[in-house]
This record gives sequence, C-alpha cells and structure tokens, in this order.
Amino acid sequence: MKIVVIGASGIVGTAVAEELTGRGHEVVRASRRGPVVVDMAEPATVEELFRSVPDVDAVVCCAANAPTADLVEAPDDEFLAGLPGKLLGQVRLARAALHHLRDGGSVTLTGGTFVEPMPGGSFGALVNAGLAAFVEAAAGELPRGLRLNLVAPGWVRESLEAFGWDPDPGVPAAEVARVYADLVDGTGTGQVVPVTAR
Amino acid sequence: MKIVVIGASGIVGTAVAEELTGRGHEVVRASRRGPVVVDMAEPATVEELFRSVPDVDAVVCCAANAPTADLVEAPDDEFLAGLPGKLLGQVRLARAALHHLRDGGSVTLTGGTFVEPMPGGSFGALVNAGLAAFVEAAAGELPRGLRLNLVAPGWVRESLEAFGWDPDPGVPAAEVARVYADLVDGTGTGQVVPVTAR
Ligand SMILES: NC(=O)c1ccc[n+]([C@@H]2O[C@H](COP(=O)([O-])OP(=O)(O)OC[C@H]3O[C@@H](n4cnc5c(N)ncnc54)[C@H](OP(=O)(O)O)[C@@H]3O)[C@@H](O)[C@H]2O)c1
Ligand SMILES: NC(=O)c1ccc[n+]([C@@H]2O[C@H](COP(=O)([O-])OP(=O)(O)OC[C@H]3O[C@@H](n4cnc5c(N)ncnc54)[C@H](OP(=O)(O)O)[C@@H]3O)[C@@H](O)[C@H]2O)c1
Repeated sequence: MKIVVIGASGIVGTAVAEELTGRGHEVVRASRRGPVVVDMAEPATVEELFRSVPDVDAVVCCAANAPTADLVEAPDDEFLAGLPGKLLGQVRLARAALHHLRDGGSVTLTGGTFVEPMPGGSFGALVNAGLAAFVEAAAGELPRGLRLNLVAPGWVRESLEAFGWDPDPGVPAAEVARVYADLVDGTGTGQVVPVTAR
Repeated sequence: MKIVVIGASGIVGTAVAEELTGRGHEVVRASRRGPVVVDMAEPATVEELFRSVPDVDAVVCCAANAPTADLVEAPDDEFLAGLPGKLLGQVRLARAALHHLRDGGSVTLTGGTFVEPMPGGSFGALVNAGLAAFVEAAAGELPRGLRLNLVAPGWVRESLEAFGWDPDPGVPAAEVARVYADLVDGTGTGQVVPVTAR
C-alpha cells in the first residue's frame, strides 16, 4: 500500500513509518518541515497534500498535540492550543481524505488516553474524547469502503525518557506503532484503540 | 440565588428559567436577542455579560446548537457549525465564569445524548463527548468551591412536536429543566447527567 504518515519525524510517527516500511508498504513522510510539507492547522495544506501525492491507500496522522494549560489562568490561545491542529486538523484531514483515498482506503488518527486526570488537561480531555466520538460516529457514514480509526496512546516510553521522567509507565513507541499498522492492515472501522502500559 | 440563564427564550431554556423562578431564585434571562444580550459564539459578549450583570451565583447555558451535517458533502463551515457557540462558547463561558461568580457558585452547561447514531451527527457527537470530558476533567481544577456540571438531553418532547414528529421518544422540557435546577441547587461537581426517555 501507499501510505502517507503525517508527523513522521516525531516520536510516534518515526516508529509508525518504520513499522509500515518493515511490513513492505510504501511510506510518504509528511510534516511541517518536509520532505512532504503539511501543517495540520492549515486546511489548505491538507488539501494540497492530497493533490501533490496521488493514489494514496491510507493516511496515518501522528502530528500536532494538545498541550496542558491551566484552566483558570491560561490565556485563551494557550488553553485552546490543541484546537486548530489536533482536533480540527484531524477532523478536516479525515473529511478531505474521503475525497482522495483509493476505494477501501483508511484514515488512522491519534487521540490520547489520560490514565488518571492530568492537571491542566481539561482541554486535552475534550480533544481526546471528541476525536474518539467523532471516529465512532463518522465510521457509519463512510463511502467507498473507506475506514476510519483512532489510536489513543497513554504515555509513550521514549517521551517520558526525553522529559527525564520515569519511563516505566510508558509504552514503547514500537509497540504503539504496531497498533497503528494493525489498523491500517486490518479491516476494522470506527475503532478507538487505547494503548497504555498494563 | 441570582442565576443567569443563557438561551432562556428557547425550548429548554424557557423551562429552566421557569423551574428556577418557581424555586424562588432570581433569574436573569440572556440570549442573542435580549433582554440581556450575549452571543455564545462571540467571546467578548460573554465577558461583557459578566461585567454588566454582577454578583451572579450561577450560570446555566442552554443556548447554541450543533446541527447535523453530512460528513462527506457538507462545506466546512456547515459541518463545524457547532464549534463556535456550543463547543468553544461553552468552554469559554465556563472559564470566564470562574473569574466572576460568587464563591461556591456553579456553571451548568448543555451537551446532548444520541440514543442511537444520528446520520450527519458525527460533529455533534464530537461536541457532546468533548463537553462531557471537559466538564469531568475541569471539575478537579476549580477554585473557590465553584462547581461545573453538564446536562446531556436526548430528544426533548416539545422539540419533536415542533418538528411534527412522534413526541413519544422525547422527555418533556419541564422534566429536563428539573435536572438543571437540581444541579444548580445541589452540591455535585464534574457531573454529566444524560436525560433520555426510558
Ligand atoms: N508521546 C506521547 O507520550 C504521546 C502520548 C499520547 C498521545 N500522543 C499523541 O501522539 C501524537 C504524536 O506525538 P509525538 O510524541 O510523536 O509528537 P512529537 O515527537 O512532538 O512529533 C510530532 C510530529 O508531528 C509533526 N507536527 C507537529 N505539528 C504539526 C502540524 N501542525 N502539522 C503537521 N505536522 C506537525 C512534527 O514535525 P514538524 O515539526 O516537522 O511539523 C513531528 O513529526 C500527538 O497527537 C500526541 O498528542 C503522544
Ligand atoms: N431540544 C432538544 O430536543 C435538545 C436535545 C438535546 C440537546 N439539546 C440542546 O439543548 C440546548 C437548547 O436547545 P433548545 O431546543 O432549547 O434550543 P432552541 O429552542 O433553539 O433555543 C435556543 C436558545 O438559545 C438562544 N441562542 C441560540 N444561539 C445563541 C447564541 N449563539 N448565543 C446566545 N444565545 C443563543 C436562543 O435565543 P436567541 O435566538 O435570542 O439567541 C434561544 O433562547 C442546545 O444546546 C441543544 O443542542 C436540545
């Protein structure tokens, strides 16, 4: 399959691109800083991505983020930082993909799982729950045998390491990547798959 | 208590304002077309509301909506129509209220419940699930004994009647209104209360 991975230079995306390549797929790596350029917060660049990369079977998005922000004190733009890219960008990506993917193709988005409530995580919780509900509801309305799924990781081990925190509550990126690849290679749709350490 | 009801001229809001008045509260009725003016989609008007109506104990929002829209064909602004008012407007209202309500005051927002998947309801599902997750997560971070809750109605009987549909799957507005008033009068926080016909 020909698969676009958005956020392919990130901690999760690098592992996803490697896993898909290892399974014999052709992977097109995209992010804000090339090789193929797209900005999830800029709808026009998402349309342009599909025009410049034709005949795509699947798109996986592990880009953008919904950072924590204080409920009471954060300025509006900081509090809503997850809105343009992670929430709306992924909704728009899914909608745009429906017009461009090959029949039977798939879209795999990224949400997240808070294993316990995270201080400053109220808008992130909105984003993650909203995306999960969107994927579950939208799956019933997809044309041409298209599929739509969501991976909802908890902490990724390599991210905890990068922060200098205890990596043990994290799931290795390679393990998270297999969940994405299984959704791309599979037949399911409307699935929301949490990936957390046992 | 002095309680601002936003959307007080609507099907749900009229019943909520009546129920609260019947319980002896002072109710300030707000919506886009007065008596007190606010537009949930315009953040500046929400701030202005709190400046012009001081010493509020509770705010209830039953305004704005997330209309259905076709996943594949709807233009972007139609598909995302629930975003500025119902989703972001209510998040911003809750955040603004934290700076203006009296100690121990409360915010009660409106989500919704799809008893079964609704064609064109994928963004509405995002809005409803997002608001529910926000309320649950934000409740843990509220200062000054403030409370935040969400009512998630299924179909309201009077709305089905107004559409000329079978009213039986609906809950009477007066019954929905009691759920709002119980949350205002109660002590709970972070509660998401679905209200559907048995
Ligand atoms: N890592 C974790 O522990 C964890 C846990 C739960 C959920 N998640 C979610 O998983 C996703 C990926 O996380 P990550 O840790 O792999 O992030 P990351 O290491 O920061 O990588 C982000 C990737 O996305 C690209 N990107 C960022 N903003 C973008 C935008 N607006 N448009 C297009 N590309 C963009 C970045 O490249 P450019 O800078 O070149 O654009 C990079 O390739 C995020 O949604 C995150 O919230 C991560
Ligand atoms: N009725 C149902 O069956 C049902 C079921 C589930 C959920 N809900 C939810 O319950 C809420 C109320 O529904 P409803 O049926 O009572 O609606 P409605 O009858 O259409 O009334 C809407 C009310 O909100 C006001 N309003 C609309 N947009 C506004 C805005 N941007 N800013 C401020 N005020 C605004 C309207 O007055 P103005 O025009 O003067 O602004 C009116 O007072 C909505 O969130 C709806 O999604 C309703």
